[in-house]
Amino acid sequence: ASGSNLIRATLFPGDGIGPEIAESVKQVFRAADVPIEWEEHFVGKEVDPRTQSFLTWESLESVRRNKVGLKGPMATPIGKGHRSLNLTLRKELNLYANVRPCYSLPGYKTKYDDVDLITIRENTEGEYSGLEHQVVRGVVESLKIITRQASLRVAEYAFHYAKAHGRERVSAIHKANIMQKTDGLFLKCCREVAEKYPEIVYEEVVIDNCCMMLVKNPSLFDVLVMPNLYGDIISDLCAGLIGGLGLTPSCNIGEGGIALAEAVHGSAPDIAGKNLANPTALLLSSVSMLRHLDLHDKADRIQDAVLNTIAEGKYRTGDLGGKATTTDFTKAICDHL
Amino acid sequence: ASGSNLIRATLFPGDGIGPEIAESVKQVFRAADVPIEWEEHFVGKEVDPRTQSFLTWESLESVRRNKVGLKGPMATPIGKGHRSLNLTLRKELNLYANVRPCYSLPGYKTKYDDVDLITIRENTEGEYSGLEHQVVRGVVESLKIITRQASLRVAEYAFHYAKAHGRERVSAIHKANIMQKTDGLFLKCCREVAEKYPEIVYEEVVIDNCCMMLVKNPSLFDVLVMPNLYGDIISDLCAGLIGGLGLTPSCNIGEGGIALAEAVHGSAPDIAGKNLANPTALLLSSVSMLRHLDLHDKADRIQDAVLNTIAEGKYRTGDLGGKATTTDFTKAICDHL
Ligand SMILES: CC(C)[C@H](C(=O)O)[C@@H](O)C(=O)O
Ligand SMILES: CC(C)[C@H](C(=O)O)[C@@H](O)C(=O)O
Repeated sequence: ASGSNLIRATLFPGDGIGPEIAESVKQVFRAADVPIEWEEHFVGKEVDPRTQSFLTWESLESVRRNKVGLKGPMATPIGKGHRSLNLTLRKELNLYANVRPCYSLPGYKTKYDDVDLITIRENTEGEYSGLEHQVVRGVVESLKIITRQASLRVAEYAFHYAKAHGRERVSAIHKANIMQKTDGLFLKCCREVAEKYPEIVYEEVVIDNCCMMLVKNPSLFDVLVMPNLYGDIISDLCAGLIGGLGLTPSCNIGEGGIALAEAVHGSAPDIAGKNLANPTALLLSSVSMLRHLDLHDKADRIQDAVLNTIAEGKYRTGDLGGKATTTDFTKAICDHL
Repeated sequence: ASGSNLIRATLFPGDGIGPEIAESVKQVFRAADVPIEWEEHFVGKEVDPRTQSFLTWESLESVRRNKVGLKGPMATPIGKGHRSLNLTLRKELNLYANVRPCYSLPGYKTKYDDVDLITIRENTEGEYSGLEHQVVRGVVESLKIITRQASLRVAEYAFHYAKAHGRERVSAIHKANIMQKTDGLFLKCCREVAEKYPEIVYEEVVIDNCCMMLVKNPSLFDVLVMPNLYGDIISDLCAGLIGGLGLTPSCNIGEGGIALAEAVHGSAPDIAGKNLANPTALLLSSVSMLRHLDLHDKADRIQDAVLNTIAEGKYRTGDLGGKATTTDFTKAICDHL
């Protein structure tokens, strides 16, 4: 990759195991000759008044400028007077859709071998409004906000995604039998968008029933689109079907074409710095980022190398029952490239 | 059972398959010589102004008087100006805790063979407040309400239940990292109650993580207690692990010692009246009702007969892959008694 053709991308290694798994991505990208130049940003040591969080203003500017980034786990430091790092990123960068592909990994056995789902989560409102207060002593309320604008935007994204990826069905997940106005508006928006995609089957599934169906038979679903909290819940449930958050990629789509891919697992402080972490979720997230950049060849090569390494089973990290270190596993992937 | 010693219990056969599965319970109770006299109540044909729903005032009075009842599925008729039947029951009878035991049925194979969970759901508030409105065009909000009173009440019930049933652990499920005030209050109440039960392990699990853990390894949990909406979601997820809502009992606990057991599956209008319905959920719910009445001998006998009939596999209804009718299955259970 020659300097002039490099694409600049922001990299947040994050906390805990973040730096180790980010190093793994950097090595794999070098081995695959991916034309990306990383602009690394770290979580600050104190609250930046411009972001009201430990994220620096410069790091947000970097994503806005590059329009593409990759993020490791970030543990929000405990204490008052600042915002969660993850929520700050979503709010400040207007990351309105969180896309999590979830598919069974060949050769890595779980109770499910037929999972191939995409969850698309509204990422900016719903129960995540941040609006809460005490009404009287012992009585508190949280506001769940649903807007036509955000619902249409994520529904558009879901149908667009389904069509672009040759998917057949979009299921809108809701609890409109109870929240007729909020979830009702969400469904209304999904229906409006569905009309523009007659080739895609559209259905509506109540969240409780959806969870029951997912554990009984995940192949009943294809693309799922839903309000924020349901997306939080269902995407983790889906990850569980195929082995956990250590294996599933995620990508946040923002206004103005921004894409911030991220590993959604925790920072695992207990194993941080010990060369034991599994970089799969961050690697597969980096693949999502490459696809967003239309670098499909590179994406395919890296995805195949990761999946084949796991499938062979010789180099697996401890969370998958193996004994490989992060660097062993990374090297095995590079050897596959 | 002699007339004078009979305990009166309210029976709502409900809609769709309700009358058939209720008939099954009545037969099994007769065969087991259960000292219960049923007071049957049907869903009304028009809105009763005193309940604002199709449930009659008399039927609610019946439960209040008897303090114990059994309920089949109720489909709320579509249209404006009345309340959901299920929600009316919960509100009017102050059914504050919904208890759903969920265990693997011996001989009925699913992907999970080690499930033994109790979900205890706060049943009166949270996202089910019914408080919703449009703020401006295209912006709607729902109020999630959490009170100290309802949270303490359900937490007390959960720990009391855990202790009485020899359970070791209570997990409070929440999303207090996002809803710090509402779910935070719920957790605070759980912690207060937990202090009074030092012999029971208390833990707090974020709902998304809980769902992932449940599908990976349900034996990590024992008794789960949670706000309304999470309970709705998680209890269905758990039912899915062991085969679905057709197999899981449920019991609602109300103020003043009321217990209303119910089958939580739908009314299945497609198979109604065809002698095809599986009465298992209603039968196991009736067992919960008997336990509430301290009729443990009868409860054990009926539970064993139901489980053995399913385990043997000769008489299973269509939903379990068999060919038995509702009456075949019921007769097989009675033969086991
Ligand atoms: C860490 C937490 C705030 C976050 C969320 O609730 O959205 C996480 O669970 C996720 O899914 O990204
Ligand atoms: C039918 C519906 C209103 C109800 C609920 O949401 O509580 C059901 O799902 C349940 O779990 O009893």
